Amino acid sequence: MKGIYLDHASAMPVDPRVLAFASKHLNNPGNPSSLYSEGLEAKRAIEDARGKIAELVNAEREHCIIFTGGATESNNLAIKGTALRNMGKGKEVVTSAIEHMSVLNPMKDLQKSGFKLTVVPVDSTGMLDLEKLDDSLTKNTTVTSIMYANNEIGTIEPIREMSEIVHEKGLYLHVDATAAEGRIPIDVQNGGIDLLTLSSNDLYGPQGAGAIYIKPGVKIQPILPGGGQERGLRSGTENLFAIAGMGEAARIAKDEMGEESVRLVRMRDELIKDILEIEESYLTGHPTKRLPHHASFHFDRIEGESILLNMDSMYGIQVATGSACSSKTLEPSHVLLAVGLKHEEAHGSMVITLGRSNNLEQVPRIVKGVKETVERLRKLSPL
Amino acid sequence: MKGIYLDHASAMPVDPRVLAFASKHLNNPGNPSSLYSEGLEAKRAIEDARGKIAELVNAEREHCIIFTGGATESNNLAIKGTALRNMGKGKEVVTSAIEHMSVLNPMKDLQKSGFKLTVVPVDSTGMLDLEKLDDSLTKNTTVTSIMYANNEIGTIEPIREMSEIVHEKGLYLHVDATAAEGRIPIDVQNGGIDLLTLSSNDLYGPQGAGAIYIKPGVKIQPILPGGGQERGLRSGTENLFAIAGMGEAARIAKDEMGEESVRLVRMRDELIKDILEIEESYLTGHPTKRLPHHASFHFDRIEGESILLNMDSMYGIQVATGSACSSKTLEPSHVLLAVGLKHEEAHGSMVITLGRSNNLEQVPRIVKGVKETVERLRKLSPL
Repeated sequence: MKGIYLDHASAMPVDPRVLAFASKHLNNPGNPSSLYSEGLEAKRAIEDARGKIAELVNAEREHCIIFTGGATESNNLAIKGTALRNMGKGKEVVTSAIEHMSVLNPMKDLQKSGFKLTVVPVDSTGMLDLEKLDDSLTKNTTVTSIMYANNEIGTIEPIREMSEIVHEKGLYLHVDATAAEGRIPIDVQNGGIDLLTLSSNDLYGPQGAGAIYIKPGVKIQPILPGGGQERGLRSGTENLFAIAGMGEAARIAKDEMGEESVRLVRMRDELIKDILEIEESYLTGHPTKRLPHHASFHFDRIEGESILLNMDSMYGIQVATGSACSSKTLEPSHVLLAVGLKHEEAHGSMVITLGRSNNLEQVPRIVKGVKETVERLRKLSPL
Repeated sequence: MKGIYLDHASAMPVDPRVLAFASKHLNNPGNPSSLYSEGLEAKRAIEDARGKIAELVNAEREHCIIFTGGATESNNLAIKGTALRNMGKGKEVVTSAIEHMSVLNPMKDLQKSGFKLTVVPVDSTGMLDLEKLDDSLTKNTTVTSIMYANNEIGTIEPIREMSEIVHEKGLYLHVDATAAEGRIPIDVQNGGIDLLTLSSNDLYGPQGAGAIYIKPGVKIQPILPGGGQERGLRSGTENLFAIAGMGEAARIAKDEMGEESVRLVRMRDELIKDILEIEESYLTGHPTKRLPHHASFHFDRIEGESILLNMDSMYGIQVATGSACSSKTLEPSHVLLAVGLKHEEAHGSMVITLGRSNNLEQVPRIVKGVKETVERLRKLSPL
């Protein structure tokens, strides 16, 4: 019995087409800074990838895209690089209560070094409180970081409205698009985005590459100085395989997103409808403004970790619980607490994130697995 | 006619055995932080790699090894992470004049933010001035960063002696081993090394992974905060393919280093002897205390860039000039200036770094290429 992988927010397989495209760079050495033929070929591969990523997000120019080692590094660069570079303007930063830890933790680092940090709340669906955002911004705010969509509850934030509020005051908006990229169309110009975080693996590209879009004119400084690659903004010999792969992954995502999204929304909605038939089960996140591949729940009186282990061992189905990236911590997800769940409710969460290997025919098996698992665990539960 | 690649300091092919070992992780998603089977398998792969790297450098424990995105990040972490974490002790840092830019530039960043930076000179062979090192260290020095061996001139530094000087004063020694790893034996315990930078690709592993060895007890803080991976010292979902590959690359390097080094030294010495027959040609770096795969020269009255382009286009041979990582800058190499070369001398440099695909039979073709190239360029030279 082949397994069903439903944890695409946590790690994604590399698309075979991406592998076929990028694999040649594993055998051909070539440092893009070298002047001989292999170096120039490597350089061309990097620029080709840059162009494809610029297209995915409708960047003004290819050179608005800077490659990094991943989304965590992109978020750190966007936040620390912008805050430190613009310190002369002020020492205030703003973010939301449901950001990824790779946004919240650099923000807290800044706070420790004397910055004022304001965390804007969200409502029970995970939607940002725009009035509170407005109130939080002052002329001293150098970077406001709000995610495009949330990885744990799937809610898509009102980027355009946020951007108008931020830009009205002449400030910079950073958007972490890790969960949204390749799932829904992103347009940095139309959306009014100054800095955007992207990750390769979340596009079915190889791990080890990320990117940051930087709007022309935005002042930012590197956090990893060295050999001066990527216009001095990110040093280190370029990870050619991962970057070329990320570019191709972006191209495929752009081409196929429309159709794929329709397919996944059908499966998602089917899953949500069927799983909510379980007693004392609840959808987390927004009922309609949510990512096409994202279905997230919490169940009363059971533990998410037990759901995960049962689903894996008894049904060969991989789901997530709490934050996809820190499920080994015992703390309940800060995202679920921020949308108003109690500790015990937050502990009973399950997150399903669909991908290219999933299809409608898997729905009955998944639903059966979830229903039986919840039932079994509740029987065992002391609560 | 197949080419001869002689620029292993710049970029290395991935060893086919490494690829075979690590490739499965490209198709199997699995976040090492996830609790289901794929996650646990990913976690095991990471720990297996950690063990192999600990063995390569004789670390006290596997958990002294922390994975990063590459050598540039490891150097930044070692330097900034240690300096900032131990700021209470003092705000002085020390390095040498021939370090890689990924050491020198974070040092300069610290200097800009109020640290005192002392740069210790080297002699004409690139050997660190130990007396000046001793004079530079005070009780306020929080990190001293000296490379194991130099990437541009091949000189191996007296690590043990340096370490004794640094430790006599109770201070931390960071060693960038990017150029030395896999080429000569490294023993962090015997060598008295507190922090060590390693890179995957320089071991014939995939790009996109690096590591840092941290001696038990050394106080350091992360530079990329986020999800808390790698014991909180390096956040970001682990690059499984690159890390597993780096581990296997380390295992192969450890097993084969002895024999391979004998093979490369023979080829290196043959090349040096033959190339120095050219008039007004000089070896750069130390005549004997040099890396087994490293032969570096400068030639009067010609340009390194022209040598590189001629060797590539006319002989299919790839060599480097100046710094392997910044050969597109017009500045002469800071390393060559530090060993006392004049600007015009430094511009006429050529660096050969051998690897597994090279063999003695290639020597005549390489030597012929270099001799004819130098002769041709000198005829064209206005000097």
